[in-house]
Amino acid sequence: MASDPDPLQDFCIPNLKSPNKSCKNSTAVTAEDFVFSGGKSAGTFSESGFATVAANPSNFPGLNTLGMSFVRADFKEGAINPPHVHPRAAEMVYVVQGRVYAGFVDSANRVYAKVIEEGEVMVFPRGLVHFQMNVGKRRATVFGCFNSQNPGTQKMAASIFGSGIKEELLEKAFGLTSKEIRRMKRMFDS
Amino acid sequence: MASDPDPLQDFCIPNLKSPNKSCKNSTAVTAEDFVFSGGKSAGTFSESGFATVAANPSNFPGLNTLGMSFVRADFKEGAINPPHVHPRAAEMVYVVQGRVYAGFVDSANRVYAKVIEEGEVMVFPRGLVHFQMNVGKRRATVFGCFNSQNPGTQKMAASIFGSGIKEELLEKAFGLTSKEIRRMKRMFDS
Amino acid sequence: MASDPDPLQDFCIPNLKSPNKSCKNSTAVTAEDFVFSGGKSAGTFSESGFATVAANPSNFPGLNTLGMSFVRADFKEGAINPPHVHPRAAEMVYVVQGRVYAGFVDSANRVYAKVIEEGEVMVFPRGLVHFQMNVGKRRATVFGCFNSQNPGTQKMAASIFGSGIKEELLEKAFGLTSKEIRRMKRMFDS
Amino acid sequence: MASDPDPLQDFCIPNLKSPNKSCKNSTAVTAEDFVFSGGKSAGTFSESGFATVAANPSNFPGLNTLGMSFVRADFKEGAINPPHVHPRAAEMVYVVQGRVYAGFVDSANRVYAKVIEEGEVMVFPRGLVHFQMNVGKRRATVFGCFNSQNPGTQKMAASIFGSGIKEELLEKAFGLTSKEIRRMKRMFDS
Amino acid sequence: MASDPDPLQDFCIPNLKSPNKSCKNSTAVTAEDFVFSGGKSAGTFSESGFATVAANPSNFPGLNTLGMSFVRADFKEGAINPPHVHPRAAEMVYVVQGRVYAGFVDSANRVYAKVIEEGEVMVFPRGLVHFQMNVGKRRATVFGCFNSQNPGTQKMAASIFGSGIKEELLEKAFGLTSKEIRRMKRMFDS
Amino acid sequence: MASDPDPLQDFCIPNLKSPNKSCKNSTAVTAEDFVFSGGKSAGTFSESGFATVAANPSNFPGLNTLGMSFVRADFKEGAINPPHVHPRAAEMVYVVQGRVYAGFVDSANRVYAKVIEEGEVMVFPRGLVHFQMNVGKRRATVFGCFNSQNPGTQKMAASIFGSGIKEELLEKAFGLTSKEIRRMKRMFDS
Repeated sequence: MASDPDPLQDFCIPNLKSPNKSCKNSTAVTAEDFVFSGGKSAGTFSESGFATVAANPSNFPGLNTLGMSFVRADFKEGAINPPHVHPRAAEMVYVVQGRVYAGFVDSANRVYAKVIEEGEVMVFPRGLVHFQMNVGKRRATVFGCFNSQNPGTQKMAASIFGSGIKEELLEKAFGLTSKEIRRMKRMFDS
Repeated sequence: MASDPDPLQDFCIPNLKSPNKSCKNSTAVTAEDFVFSGGKSAGTFSESGFATVAANPSNFPGLNTLGMSFVRADFKEGAINPPHVHPRAAEMVYVVQGRVYAGFVDSANRVYAKVIEEGEVMVFPRGLVHFQMNVGKRRATVFGCFNSQNPGTQKMAASIFGSGIKEELLEKAFGLTSKEIRRMKRMFDS
Repeated sequence: MASDPDPLQDFCIPNLKSPNKSCKNSTAVTAEDFVFSGGKSAGTFSESGFATVAANPSNFPGLNTLGMSFVRADFKEGAINPPHVHPRAAEMVYVVQGRVYAGFVDSANRVYAKVIEEGEVMVFPRGLVHFQMNVGKRRATVFGCFNSQNPGTQKMAASIFGSGIKEELLEKAFGLTSKEIRRMKRMFDS
Repeated sequence: MASDPDPLQDFCIPNLKSPNKSCKNSTAVTAEDFVFSGGKSAGTFSESGFATVAANPSNFPGLNTLGMSFVRADFKEGAINPPHVHPRAAEMVYVVQGRVYAGFVDSANRVYAKVIEEGEVMVFPRGLVHFQMNVGKRRATVFGCFNSQNPGTQKMAASIFGSGIKEELLEKAFGLTSKEIRRMKRMFDS
Repeated sequence: MASDPDPLQDFCIPNLKSPNKSCKNSTAVTAEDFVFSGGKSAGTFSESGFATVAANPSNFPGLNTLGMSFVRADFKEGAINPPHVHPRAAEMVYVVQGRVYAGFVDSANRVYAKVIEEGEVMVFPRGLVHFQMNVGKRRATVFGCFNSQNPGTQKMAASIFGSGIKEELLEKAFGLTSKEIRRMKRMFDS
Repeated sequence: MASDPDPLQDFCIPNLKSPNKSCKNSTAVTAEDFVFSGGKSAGTFSESGFATVAANPSNFPGLNTLGMSFVRADFKEGAINPPHVHPRAAEMVYVVQGRVYAGFVDSANRVYAKVIEEGEVMVFPRGLVHFQMNVGKRRATVFGCFNSQNPGTQKMAASIFGSGIKEELLEKAFGLTSKEIRRMKRMFDS
C-alpha cells in the first residue's frame, strides 16, 4: 500500500538553497542527514496537554524520497489526540510509555478501539479517522511511523468547524442550530 | 496518484461464484460486463433529499482491477452531501444539472469552495474532507469519478458521533458537554 | 491500476512562470484552481462532426499530481471518435446525452461493443484500442474520465499512416499496395 | 514507470494445480523455476517470416510477481513485426543479430525510427505504437524485455480490422469504402 | 517510495483457515486484530546477545495490505545486528533505550554511520546494506518500522557463506583461499 | 512489481544543460535519443577479467521516466560478477554467448543457482544477492535488463569491507580476527 512514488536513487538530500529542491551532490551528504534528534524530548504542549514533534523531509532531509516519516506525540494525563485523518499514509503507533486508548473508525462507521500499553503497537489504515487519549496516571509517549514522507493531517473538528465551510451546510450536516454552529466555529477558528 | 495496484491483464471480470473471486474465463465475458446502467436514474432519496448510486466491481464487474469507479449523486433543493473523506481516491465531480456549492478543506484547515454549475468540474484531492450542497432552485445531479475501484467513504459526523468512540474523548475533541455529545450520538447512531 | 505516481502533498498548483513548474505557494492558491469551466459547452467541431475539450494540468491546474483528468466529447449525428489508445490510463465514459455505439478490443482481438445511452457508463481498460460513434438522431455528448493526469492519445489511423513510418513496412502490415498506402498517407498526413 | 504491483515476497512460483494460483511452498521451488530455455532457438515462423517466443509466468514461473517478462523475435529477410501496442509495459529491444528498422510513434503522431544493429538497444515507451522490419541480408534476432509480467500485445491491423468493429465506423475512421473495409476484414479476420 | 501495492479496502484481516487467505468478513474483525502485544518484551537472545521480535501479517493480522510492518530489536552490551539488506522496504529505526552505532552503505561503497541515542531516529534506504551495534554500557532496544508488510531480510555473511554458492566463486569474490572459504562456510552454514 | 514511479508523458529526454533536468522540448528530440550503441562491444576489462557497460538515463536519455535500464557484461574465462544486490530492481539476464554459472540467494539463505547457456534467461528478484561466473571455455557475454531506470548496485565484499564500517562490528559479523578484517579492508578499499 504505497503512498509515495518509488525512489530513483539511493537517497536524495534536498538542496534547500536550490529553488527546485534538487538533490545535493553526494559528496556534501553526511551521516547527520539520515539522523533526526528532534524527537529526544517532547514538543511544546498545547493548553490541553498534547505535544507533537513531526519529522519530515524539511527537518529530517534523509527521509526525502524514502516514503516514510514519523511523529512523536506526548500526552499529559487525560490529554487527547483528537479524531483526525492522514490522507496519504497508514500509521503504526508504538507506545513508548503510558497507557493510551486508541482506535480508528472504518468506512462502515464501526470503531476499533482499545487501551494499549508500553511496548504495544496499533495500526491505523490509510485515510481513516483515528484518535488517542491518555488513560493512564502519568504522561504517555507514542512513536507513530507513516508510509509516506508527507502523510498530511486533517483534524476533524478544526477542518470542519474552523475552515469557513458555509454555516447552512454545517447545520444540516450536524443537526445543529445556527447558534450552536457559530459557537463551534469560534472554538475552532484558526 | 495511484490508489490501486497496476493491472496484470487486460481485464478481470470477477467470478462471483468462486470463493476467491478469480477472473472469469474470457470466453464468458461480454460487452455487458463493461457497461453500467444503474446510474440512468437517481437512487433512493434520504429524508434529507440526497440520493446516490455507487458503481464498483460488485455491481459493475468491468471495473475490477482497472483502478476506477464512480458515483451518481442527486440533490433535492437545499440537500447536502455532508463533509466526508474517501480514504483511497481523488474525486473529480462533473455537474450534470443544477447549481452546487462544493469544496474541500486542506491539511492547513483552509477551505476551497465555490458554486459550480452544469458542465463544470471540480476536483477533490485524495483523503481530504469535502462536501456539496444544492444551492439552485431545482434538483441537482452530479457524476463523481474516482481513481480507485473502491475509494471508501467516511462521513465525518456519522463516523465520529455514530461509531461508539468514548464520550470523554469526544467531549474534549469538540468542546461539548456530556449532554451535547449524547444528543449527537443519538442523532448519528447507526 | 495506477498510472501516475502517488502525491507528496495535498495538491500542487503548478507555478507556470517557473521554468521547473514548481508548486505555487499555498497562499496564492484559490478555489478557482480546482474548478474547470471550459467543458460547459462543446469544443470546436471537426469537419467530420467531432469535438473535444480536454482538461489536464495545463488548463486545469488543480489536477496536477492528483492522477486524474477528463475529456468532454461531442458528436454530431453519425460522427465518430476513431479507434485510439490512451497509453497511460483507463477511461470511464458517462453518456451525458444521446446514443453512442462504444467499445474496445482486447489483446486477443476480440471486440466488446454496445450502444450506450444517456446515464450509462462504459469502461475501457488502459492501453487498449477503443472507439465511439453517435448512432442516435441528435447530438451526443460524453464525459470521459481518466486515471492519469496526462493519459496521452494515439489515434490509430493517424499514428500509423500520418507519422512517416516506412511505406514498405506499412504495405506488409496492412496487405495494401504501394499506391493504396500512399493514398492513406495523404489522408492522414499531419 | 511501473506496470505491475510491488511484490510481497522474494518470489511466488505459481502452484498451477491450485485453482487460485497460490504460491508454491518454497521447499518445492528449484533453480529451474527461475531459468527459461525456450528462447534458445526461434519460434515457429509465420508465412510472412516472423517468429516469436514469449516468456511470461505461465511458461517461466519465476517471473511471477517480479514485474518483468520478455520475448525473442526472429525475422527472415524483409519480415516485419507489424505496428502494435503493449498496453501495460515499456519495452527495451536488444539486437542479437542482424539489422532492423525499428521505431515508435508518439501521441503527436511523430515517428522515431532508425536502423539498429547487433548490440544496439532501442526503447519503446509504454502504450505507444511501435514496429520492426528486418532490413539486413540475413535473419535478424532481437531480445525484447518488458517491465510487466504480462505486457499484453495489440496488433493494430488485426485489432482494428479483425475484431468485428462496425464497418461504418471503420469506413469513417480510415476514409475507405465499404468494399475496401470488407477486404481488410477478410485479410485480418481471426 | 512504495514497496507494496495500494490497498483495495479499509483493511483485510487474513482468514487463516482459508487456503487462499481471503479477507475475513468484517463482522468477525475486532480491535485486537489491529494491536500487537508481542513486542512488549525482548525476543529470545542469540548466543551473541541479539534478539528480535518481528511483526508481520502472519502474527499481526491488521498489517495485511497496509504496507507497513516492524521489528523490535534488543542488544546486550556489545551485540550487533550484522550487515543486512531488506529487499522490499526502507527502514526507520527509533532508539527506545541505549546507545547504538548504526549506519548504511550506499551504491558508491560509502558508509553513513553514527552513534544514535535514546529518542533519536535513523533511516536506511531500501535495499542497501545496514547494521547496528550496541556501543553503550547497558542493553539497547530499538523499534524499526518498514514501509512494506513483508520487507524480507538478507544477512550478508549468512547469505553469502551459508547458502551453498560455489566455493570457487566465493574465493574469487573475497580474495580468500579455499581453506578460508571453507571455514567461513562452516561458520554460517544454516 | 514497480521500481519507479509511473510516467506522466510519452517520454522525457532530460535537458542536460538545465540545472533541474527538465524534459527537452519534443521538437529537439530525435530517434537517436531512444537508441544506445555503447553496448556493441565489451566495456573495459578489470584485472580479474570482468567488464560492464551500463545504460541509464545519463548515457541513454530515452530511458528517462520509462522504468527500465540495462547492462552488458562480459566475462573472460573463469571471471566472476561477484555477489551483489540491486536495491531498486529485479533483473532478467539473457546469455548472448558462453556458459555462465548464475544464481541468487533468498531471504532464507537458500541459493538458486544453475549453469545457463546461450539463449537462456535467468531472473533475479529485486534486492536479493546474486552472482555469475563464466564456467565455459571462451568469453561469455550477457545482457541484463532491469525494471528501474536506476537500479543501483551494491557489491557485497566492497560495500562491507571497503566502506569504512567499524572493524569491531565486522569482526563480530564475520567471525574474523582483527588482522583478517584489516586484510579484507585493504583488499576492497576504494
